[in-house]
Amino acid sequence: MSIESTIMKMTKAAKAASAEIAKCPTVKKNAVLLKIAETIEKNAEFIKNENRKDLDIANEKRLSNAMIDRLTTSDSTIKAMSDGLREVALLDDPVGSLSETRRRPNGLEVSRMRIPLGVIGIIYESRPNVTIDAAGLCLKAGNAVLLRGGSESLSTNRALAGIIGKALRETGLPEETVQVVPVSDRLAVNLLLKQEEDIDLIIPRGGEGLIRFVVENSKIPVLKHYKGVCHVYVDEGADLAMAENICFNSKVQRPGVCNAMETMLVHKSAAPLFLPKMAKRFIDKGVEIRGCPETCKILPKAVEAQKNDWSAEYLDLIVSVKIVNDMDQAMMHIMEFGSSHTETIVTSDYKRARRFVREIDSSVVLVNASTRFNDGGQLGLGAEIGISTSKLHAFGPMGVEELTTTKFIVFGDGQLRK
Amino acid sequence: MSIESTIMKMTKAAKAASAEIAKCPTVKKNAVLLKIAETIEKNAEFIKNENRKDLDIANEKRLSNAMIDRLTTSDSTIKAMSDGLREVALLDDPVGSLSETRRRPNGLEVSRMRIPLGVIGIIYESRPNVTIDAAGLCLKAGNAVLLRGGSESLSTNRALAGIIGKALRETGLPEETVQVVPVSDRLAVNLLLKQEEDIDLIIPRGGEGLIRFVVENSKIPVLKHYKGVCHVYVDEGADLAMAENICFNSKVQRPGVCNAMETMLVHKSAAPLFLPKMAKRFIDKGVEIRGCPETCKILPKAVEAQKNDWSAEYLDLIVSVKIVNDMDQAMMHIMEFGSSHTETIVTSDYKRARRFVREIDSSVVLVNASTRFNDGGQLGLGAEIGISTSKLHAFGPMGVEELTTTKFIVFGDGQLRK
Repeated sequence: MSIESTIMKMTKAAKAASAEIAKCPTVKKNAVLLKIAETIEKNAEFIKNENRKDLDIANEKRLSNAMIDRLTTSDSTIKAMSDGLREVALLDDPVGSLSETRRRPNGLEVSRMRIPLGVIGIIYESRPNVTIDAAGLCLKAGNAVLLRGGSESLSTNRALAGIIGKALRETGLPEETVQVVPVSDRLAVNLLLKQEEDIDLIIPRGGEGLIRFVVENSKIPVLKHYKGVCHVYVDEGADLAMAENICFNSKVQRPGVCNAMETMLVHKSAAPLFLPKMAKRFIDKGVEIRGCPETCKILPKAVEAQKNDWSAEYLDLIVSVKIVNDMDQAMMHIMEFGSSHTETIVTSDYKRARRFVREIDSSVVLVNASTRFNDGGQLGLGAEIGISTSKLHAFGPMGVEELTTTKFIVFGDGQLRK
Repeated sequence: MSIESTIMKMTKAAKAASAEIAKCPTVKKNAVLLKIAETIEKNAEFIKNENRKDLDIANEKRLSNAMIDRLTTSDSTIKAMSDGLREVALLDDPVGSLSETRRRPNGLEVSRMRIPLGVIGIIYESRPNVTIDAAGLCLKAGNAVLLRGGSESLSTNRALAGIIGKALRETGLPEETVQVVPVSDRLAVNLLLKQEEDIDLIIPRGGEGLIRFVVENSKIPVLKHYKGVCHVYVDEGADLAMAENICFNSKVQRPGVCNAMETMLVHKSAAPLFLPKMAKRFIDKGVEIRGCPETCKILPKAVEAQKNDWSAEYLDLIVSVKIVNDMDQAMMHIMEFGSSHTETIVTSDYKRARRFVREIDSSVVLVNASTRFNDGGQLGLGAEIGISTSKLHAFGPMGVEELTTTKFIVFGDGQLRK
């Protein structure tokens, strides 16, 4: 079969399956999730064997250690996958809930009813755990899902798809509810992105290159973030010990992720006391400091930041530091160079705290807390399927509710429009 | 100045203005709305004179009467515009409201804060009233807006833009908050649709051709509906007098709009009694009936429906009629030929009423009420900026709240991620 007809057939089957899973009772959806979790654990050896095929090819192709690390399915990643599914089973089912119920003057009763989106396409790179995490969340929200992982994890993804399909079948649901695209050709992605009649949402997960490719080529709405250039602003009069802990945690607790701090903005009155101590902690941990000229005067070990440092997402043990005259300058810097992802102010001032959260235009704005809290689990959404930095539909971490929408339902007794 | 630089300059100015209007207090936004309303009324003669220039060109070009009708700005359309603005001023301001506030186990206080989308582009055809309606709603929701009306209404739109700009200036807001694109070249639309860094949402309003053009060419998220093929299903055992009134109102109360009924589905047991009376009322009103073979047996005056009748949006005094064996067949017909817009069931059966609203995948699903109620005003949203039949961000009528989004705000006292 040609790639075209494979994709068309899968998409049509997903659309048909979406009507079934949309009306599936919560208990049955949870039963599938728990069955997948159980089967993954029982088939750990099989999954690891299939994963070894991917790893062999990856080694032949001399992929980077970081990529091979992400690709590897070990006992602990298998446990994380099944634990994740069990957590999703415990989440409230958003489907069918009613809100904003109002009675109109003519007696019509109007509500919004939460419903699944329909068919979701996930396009991702090497991590096979996304296959399970995304499938679990989409299922819980009553959606069918098409998963297109990286070519380098094809065998692992097929093994996982087989397990999911079997669990769906045994629970009496169409196995086309979750499908893994079995071709590694990029044409497959291009074709998926054109099926706007049958796919309701595309979520790309991976590097900026993949995400830009998806946005350029999709006729279907896309939820995505390109990058996270997150800032901490240390205000005048801030508790400097707290500021130090927050900046340290934001930068080094896990530097390779999108909600890690990349730029530290420091009020000029705080800088002389704050920066030397902070820099010592950073340098002890191996963090490279790239500073504005004022910063370099205070920190002789800092290198001078270049223009492109201010918009860089290092994802590494590097931090850029800028001294500012006041909060306005900090906010202007964030507006110019930020990515609408995550921003923190460390402050003791009530008014500036309120103004910062009101005026900063980022998906998560924090006062006196680490940027690393921009995460669906940490903010209380349960699991997350990603973070959106565009404002339509979802802005910030996306949980199971962001995989749904609402329709209006109206009960009347013969009302006519005048 | 080239079209490219005009569009770039306008877009950048809109982005800058959006930061101002986003933090503008409610009273000030309302003051602008009321001032525009007042100025429109005071300048009625000027607006009508400018409109006459557009009408002269339209007559020279021999545009259709329907188009000229939509283009004409009369005293009553001017009154409707200013009344509309005063209603929008009375709506609650969604910006800044908090929801889903929760305290996390580590003491973080997390809320969602409602915020404007930023910059909205509206691309529409001949009706100049959209200029005022859209500007009013976007302003109330704290957004900057770029309005690109049809070339045939350029003089009228410029006159209205001048009034809006003056009102903004006099209230101390940047006049770039509302801008009318002053070029009629379609290249201007194409350029607007590529400014994804500065425009957050595109709303096209007009015929299916315009909307498809926008979706094909936009890199920016688009909220739209292509067409409304709305159904009424008359169930077995329905109150036939009520069914007749609902079908009549849904079809003829205003046949040229998207929420008018296009297809009537009738249960086979109701058809023999219901159809002859219903047909008489339709025919007396000049409605042409296109029926399935079973319908034509009962109604000799009906013409036989062709395959493409079932997906036609007539926007006219034409109705297609199909007799079905049961609700399942009606629902399958809607799934196959409907446009996810508006569907009504007329029924006396509790269980089927509940199942219909749960399972029909349309933006508004009604029981025992006219399809014409799919309207933001009628459903209690206040004014509406349009109806969305795609599921992302908004599904159904879009009011002022749909022109906003939420960000997360987090208050802590030094929390770090473990």
